[in-house]
Amino acid sequence: MSVSKYEKVIDYAIRRGFIWQSYEIYGGQSGFYDLGPLGVLLKNNIVDLWREYFVKQHQDFVVEIETPIITPAIVFRASGHEENFTDYAVECLSCHRVYRADHLVEEILKISAEGLTGEQLDEIIEKNNIRCPVCKGSLSKTRKFLLLFQTYIGPYTPENLAYLRPEAAQGMFINFKRVYELMRRRLPLGIAQIGRVARNEISPRQGPIRLREFTIMEIEFFYDDKDPRCDILYERCSDRKIRILTAQQRERGDDKPIEISVVEAYKEGFIKSPWLAYWMCIAHNFISAIGVPEDKTYFEEKLPTERAHYSQQTFDQMVIVDKWGKLEVSGHAYRHTYDIDRHIRFSNADLYAIRQLPSPRIERKRRVKIDKTLIIKIFGSRAGEVFKALYSLGEDRLAEIVEKTPGDRIMLNDGIEIPKNILKIEEVEEQIWTERFIPHVAEPSFGAERLLYIALEYAYTEDEGRIILKFPKRIAPIKIAITPLVDREPLTNVAVNIYKTLKQYYYSIYIEGGSIGKKYAYADELGIPYVVTVDYESIERADATIRDRDTRKQIRVPINELTRVLDMALKGEDIFSLGYPIINN
Amino acid sequence: MSVSKYEKVIDYAIRRGFIWQSYEIYGGQSGFYDLGPLGVLLKNNIVDLWREYFVKQHQDFVVEIETPIITPAIVFRASGHEENFTDYAVECLSCHRVYRADHLVEEILKISAEGLTGEQLDEIIEKNNIRCPVCKGSLSKTRKFLLLFQTYIGPYTPENLAYLRPEAAQGMFINFKRVYELMRRRLPLGIAQIGRVARNEISPRQGPIRLREFTIMEIEFFYDDKDPRCDILYERCSDRKIRILTAQQRERGDDKPIEISVVEAYKEGFIKSPWLAYWMCIAHNFISAIGVPEDKTYFEEKLPTERAHYSQQTFDQMVIVDKWGKLEVSGHAYRHTYDIDRHIRFSNADLYAIRQLPSPRIERKRRVKIDKTLIIKIFGSRAGEVFKALYSLGEDRLAEIVEKTPGDRIMLNDGIEIPKNILKIEEVEEQIWTERFIPHVAEPSFGAERLLYIALEYAYTEDEGRIILKFPKRIAPIKIAITPLVDREPLTNVAVNIYKTLKQYYYSIYIEGGSIGKKYAYADELGIPYVVTVDYESIERADATIRDRDTRKQIRVPINELTRVLDMALKGEDIFSLGYPIINN
Repeated sequence: MSVSKYEKVIDYAIRRGFIWQSYEIYGGQSGFYDLGPLGVLLKNNIVDLWREYFVKQHQDFVVEIETPIITPAIVFRASGHEENFTDYAVECLSCHRVYRADHLVEEILKISAEGLTGEQLDEIIEKNNIRCPVCKGSLSKTRKFLLLFQTYIGPYTPENLAYLRPEAAQGMFINFKRVYELMRRRLPLGIAQIGRVARNEISPRQGPIRLREFTIMEIEFFYDDKDPRCDILYERCSDRKIRILTAQQRERGDDKPIEISVVEAYKEGFIKSPWLAYWMCIAHNFISAIGVPEDKTYFEEKLPTERAHYSQQTFDQMVIVDKWGKLEVSGHAYRHTYDIDRHIRFSNADLYAIRQLPSPRIERKRRVKIDKTLIIKIFGSRAGEVFKALYSLGEDRLAEIVEKTPGDRIMLNDGIEIPKNILKIEEVEEQIWTERFIPHVAEPSFGAERLLYIALEYAYTEDEGRIILKFPKRIAPIKIAITPLVDREPLTNVAVNIYKTLKQYYYSIYIEGGSIGKKYAYADELGIPYVVTVDYESIERADATIRDRDTRKQIRVPINELTRVLDMALKGEDIFSLGYPIINN
Repeated sequence: MSVSKYEKVIDYAIRRGFIWQSYEIYGGQSGFYDLGPLGVLLKNNIVDLWREYFVKQHQDFVVEIETPIITPAIVFRASGHEENFTDYAVECLSCHRVYRADHLVEEILKISAEGLTGEQLDEIIEKNNIRCPVCKGSLSKTRKFLLLFQTYIGPYTPENLAYLRPEAAQGMFINFKRVYELMRRRLPLGIAQIGRVARNEISPRQGPIRLREFTIMEIEFFYDDKDPRCDILYERCSDRKIRILTAQQRERGDDKPIEISVVEAYKEGFIKSPWLAYWMCIAHNFISAIGVPEDKTYFEEKLPTERAHYSQQTFDQMVIVDKWGKLEVSGHAYRHTYDIDRHIRFSNADLYAIRQLPSPRIERKRRVKIDKTLIIKIFGSRAGEVFKALYSLGEDRLAEIVEKTPGDRIMLNDGIEIPKNILKIEEVEEQIWTERFIPHVAEPSFGAERLLYIALEYAYTEDEGRIILKFPKRIAPIKIAITPLVDREPLTNVAVNIYKTLKQYYYSIYIEGGSIGKKYAYADELGIPYVVTVDYESIERADATIRDRDTRKQIRVPINELTRVLDMALKGEDIFSLGYPIINN
């Protein structure tokens, strides 16, 4: 049996210390992975790149915040997660192993079971006589399993119940008004967050792909649906072609994505929100930047039964992978007004945005006119008290009292009695130039660890039995390797000094031991874009060679220009046309 | 009553969107704070600076990893946290508010109560008749409260019990051997981690200072105590003076820290581990870099009763602050062999390091000599089977069989009987050149959110009623502001274009509205190091002015040189001596 690319990549990643299963010395815990030294560097580069594409490039109207993982239960009650963020579990009646029902059905029958109800799953399991894959025991009926991790803030009492957030989104929703005010009430407004989330998955068995704890990167993008101001979609994305597999296509069994420009996809109604379309465009660019070719990614629209409870339309960004055929790397949900609306209802807080009206709305209002002269005439030196009592009530309440009190005298709060004819109710028309509304929300959401896997799978190549990781320079964990041609003075001394300089700027390694061919092979296996080598000629010329990982081309560069040239190289500039001598091997 | 600096800083931080209490719309949750847009930028800069000082500068022997927050209970049973990570709580018998007993005693009696036992606290509370500070009700006896947040991985059953980690350290300890192997078994070895931790504090009431969830940055530094190889301490720290308040001083009531060089402090025995001393030196440099003057920080040694259960010596790095006098910003614990030793015992895993011996240790071993000629003579064509049976047993087992079998024949596993005289036992001496040992550990540990507060307090200044945040350039959240002298064409157009260029490189803002004085005041209040202004002269000369926040000095710089000059400025170079025209206001 041939080894799949997935197995090769995972084997490589563990061997080289990118990832490994957590809690190994205690037998391991499925759904949890650690990142090793190279994994952290790769992940941090991916996170920085995301921040660059999604936040920094949009810093006028996208800001990042950070909210806690531990969340009082009320938040996820309001968001609908407590009710809806569940999966169906079945238990083996003999060995008591627990399985996620839809995944078990998918694995055994090779059909899609996403979004099926418990009854539907029970029926399929019974009809197909699906049994425990390990011990062949028969299975229980499905039961709903809440995927939120529970805890308590403070002592263990029901009112202290809390959950670990399964998405960062709610931290942005409940803070919408605060950030909106900080940003001077301008829409559109994106609130971004990068942080850990936790999902109590039922027996996850997909290595580092389905994790119970991972790093999410998401934006809740708030806009006025009557004035979405999405010029940037036309400016930046009119040439951007993406591939989409619509829900309609999927329903009729068509699995060939259509190629279409993002702008067209929005105009033709395939994508319902212009900002959902815009962020899908950026997502496409971002995925390309971590090394996925244009034709290896597409957006798959979820069927209504597959969508999360809060979404009016969802596209999953898929990347073609060896083992599963395709893998979801981001979700693009049109969350509409759902979340803000729910939080307004559960918290009674004002989470509305304000919109200017093109022409004023006329509102009829009652106004109460107070006959001040009459008050002074009747109450004399006590008039001040009367004014105070009247004003403290406010106009609306005063009008109500006047209308509801029979007779011609009114008793105010402070025991003051006044004749009714002091107050006169008038109806006036007021011009209202603003209205409040719930902004619409488009959400792009990425999982950093999956992107790390994708980056590894697309970087991983083999050439005549040698492994080369062709990371895009920007995300390569280690940028520079420095080595002497042979491990001998004076070469070593010069190389070590170069290393000491370069490591101040870049994550770098010094390679020693073995032939120069072995050294290059080692650097290639770690995906290091450039190797700086000190050879005998270097000693005379006070220079060193720079070797490109992918082309294996080399140039000679004076030592005091190395940093500048490497800087240019890592920024993607062509250093082979700068006029430095090119070495032909 | 005058407003304390703490109140001013918090008021500023909330108003400008650095921080606010979490879950405000649901009434807030004490011990949880959100970071707003400026808060995230500031925090990320502090985290990056920490990574620079502690990891990147030491990348030859310090590597970063990332492990989960959710941790199976066994890990914190082994680490001693399940038993020891507790505080004493008292409950008001009338209003049922819960207090942390030592803090209550400290607050009311103005004495230190750190490290007191439950009985001692009970006695103090009774003797001083301490009552509920809110309702004056009487208080319960103290009870131990576990500060670990609990949850369950998978279904709710005892074997699935898990905790949220209160420190990142255990993730490094349990992975020590894996990282040690990856780093080719070299010591010293630092494993760093930056991530969220959670502590279920009893009714925290110190705003953003005592958080139930925060970001920790720590290193577990492993070294061979017989060969600590700490040359770098002498190379980098021999000139570094720090201030230390020793446990001895504190015991005799002396609260004046002594000034001493780090190297002397180690040599004199004030600091028991050379690597603890080294990281204290780096910690001092780091705290200076975020804006704390040298004389506003010192290291306070914990008393034995105050130390955590795992520590042989602990120094808290304190920073002088307005409200509490001093505030702990990092802890430096000599964790010795405690944690690795415990995990070896609880997991039975081999977590030992290997050390070369200066001279070999002699070990007596039994060796079994096999008389091959005799076997061939006796068994002929079946000799191969006999060899296989013998070798499969291994030398130790074979020697045991020979010794324990009476008579002169031996029965092997595969039903083969051989005469005993085929095997001869000899005693030989072997030279053992290595031995295994548990490395010693020094741990520097920082909380990012406290450093954020410290950075704010030290940056916050008032000048004639105006607020100026004098952040060190490296950590300033927004680097550049761009504004036209007046909001009018053609100035506006030029300024907007400069803004569009600069925001590709830096977090920047465009300021409009108000006089130029108000614009500068706004930039100063946000702590922006440089303002680029387009005035009328700029239009003729195709240049702009750069204004320095702290000196208010300005130079005129051609537009196409702005990025380069600002880059230099932000790296700390003196741009006022580059020869650009200086403007005198």
